Amino acid sequence: MLILRREEIQKRIDWDHAIDALKEGFKAASAGKVSMPPVGYLGFPEADGDCHIKYGHMEGDPLFVIKVSTGFYRNVETALPSSNGLSIVFSAKTGEPVALLQDEGWLTDLRTGLAGAIATQIMCRKDAFRVGIVGTGTQGRLQLRALRHILKDRNLEIQVWGRSPEKIAAYRADMATFGIDVCEAASLEQLCRTSDIIITTTPSKAPLLQAAWIKPGTHITAVGADAPGKQELAVQLVGRANAIMVDSRPQCTDHGEIATAVAMKAVDPAECLEIGEVLNAGGLLSRQESDITIADLTGLAVQDIAIAKVALATVTVTG
Amino acid sequence: MLILRREEIQKRIDWDHAIDALKEGFKAASAGKVSMPPVGYLGFPEADGDCHIKYGHMEGDPLFVIKVSTGFYRNVETALPSSNGLSIVFSAKTGEPVALLQDEGWLTDLRTGLAGAIATQIMCRKDAFRVGIVGTGTQGRLQLRALRHILKDRNLEIQVWGRSPEKIAAYRADMATFGIDVCEAASLEQLCRTSDIIITTTPSKAPLLQAAWIKPGTHITAVGADAPGKQELAVQLVGRANAIMVDSRPQCTDHGEIATAVAMKAVDPAECLEIGEVLNAGGLLSRQESDITIADLTGLAVQDIAIAKVALATVTVTG
Repeated sequence: MLILRREEIQKRIDWDHAIDALKEGFKAASAGKVSMPPVGYLGFPEADGDCHIKYGHMEGDPLFVIKVSTGFYRNVETALPSSNGLSIVFSAKTGEPVALLQDEGWLTDLRTGLAGAIATQIMCRKDAFRVGIVGTGTQGRLQLRALRHILKDRNLEIQVWGRSPEKIAAYRADMATFGIDVCEAASLEQLCRTSDIIITTTPSKAPLLQAAWIKPGTHITAVGADAPGKQELAVQLVGRANAIMVDSRPQCTDHGEIATAVAMKAVDPAECLEIGEVLNAGGLLSRQESDITIADLTGLAVQDIAIAKVALATVTVTG
Repeated sequence: MLILRREEIQKRIDWDHAIDALKEGFKAASAGKVSMPPVGYLGFPEADGDCHIKYGHMEGDPLFVIKVSTGFYRNVETALPSSNGLSIVFSAKTGEPVALLQDEGWLTDLRTGLAGAIATQIMCRKDAFRVGIVGTGTQGRLQLRALRHILKDRNLEIQVWGRSPEKIAAYRADMATFGIDVCEAASLEQLCRTSDIIITTTPSKAPLLQAAWIKPGTHITAVGADAPGKQELAVQLVGRANAIMVDSRPQCTDHGEIATAVAMKAVDPAECLEIGEVLNAGGLLSRQESDITIADLTGLAVQDIAIAKVALATVTVTG
């Protein structure tokens, strides 16, 4: 059993390979070629923690993957990261464990960032360049880095909004080390009114973005809502969208950004396209200049499979 | 993260400690003090394989455990063991991975064997000594070794039945290395008619043991049925039992030995005691000499938690 630590895994991942692998994964998922049982969940209310188990198998794949991610939100008190995790890769021919990826949650962070950028590239206007990042955490960082990677031909203008001035300053400093210049937004409303692309990355349980703030032509990618009760966008805003793309209709309807809007019948899930369906149809989404579009990503086991396989790409698998 | 291989784990497990830990686990489970979500499952029909994920957390425990077990039944063609597996132990305070137990399924085999012996000791007659083992595989071996350990004061007479003469010979030779003398049963019927305790350990999908073969006073522990469709005991036999004990009412009703009998209304699950309930009430089951009793064990995540903790007992856990 190969055991790889975070640093080794990071060296092995080429972002372009990962993007291709994630696209193939989404395509296979929407084509019904991925076995992805419901996400396993354990809650630890006393420690303000939770654990999610995502696992699955792509048809014909010699490997399958079980990904465990934990979020323990009181860790900040002791300067520990709140997120952690690992993946275990097994042979789908013999059941033998093949590899343990001790990535400490980094693969999940990366695949989430890259998937957001893939979705944004599909849905946003071809001339969109003003980017607003909502949230100053790990996903605020990775969504921006991934978007800049995937839209490398555009001259992006970037602003960020967060609740904490210290975290905004740290975010801007951190992005500067990657050569990314980020302005601080005057307010969340101002960010919304002046962005072509908005990426929301917060664990908010109350809608942050209001419908009236969003101008025609805006694309929003929302990645914060990944569990029941989380919501970043007002229901009116979701209801007003001309097109909604999700990673998984059942999962987003259950606990994604669109869940409340679907429950309130402001959105018909049957009209939401899956990202894999769009990719299977050529990867282009026809949109009007003035359309408001939303991508709602909750994270799929197939992404964990895809990214784990990229990490193992140079490894010969027995079995 | 501590990484232990099978040989190291085997050295760390004291059977008496494991028995105590399993009993405490069953007690906590039946007292509603263990979070045990439904078992995760992936099937690999092309490889005749499956994967089960059992996971959970005992109230107040600083650790939680995710156990993965695989069964790939075509492995025998290449002399690989069909079973494999591992456990990952996490801190329930910080979400950090604490240990990987690369036991290759041995901990599952052992906790299943020990649980069978615990159940048999609770339910069988105090003068029961004639033991019939049905099946010559790993559980046929471990159930017997565990029963002999737990009933060390009785002079057991043991017979075994299986379909393959070669496997019976190998079983008897293997048990002889542990100082256990085992006779070959003339037939399964003969084994049933002459045993006080019958342990069934096969993956049979058709009932093997018929009601007419079981004499009054017999206790049967059935551990083979651990997935939908598996069944070792005739429904009439299950219906005839004077007492049935299960590890988990919901799990056994869903896919244990009693599942078919419950579906056919031959058994009322409300009348089946859980092993943890019996242990919480003092661990004694009042029985008539002539009662036929059945224990149906499907395997609980709390057993995986308990046995993993025994393997880690000498390890100081941070977090």
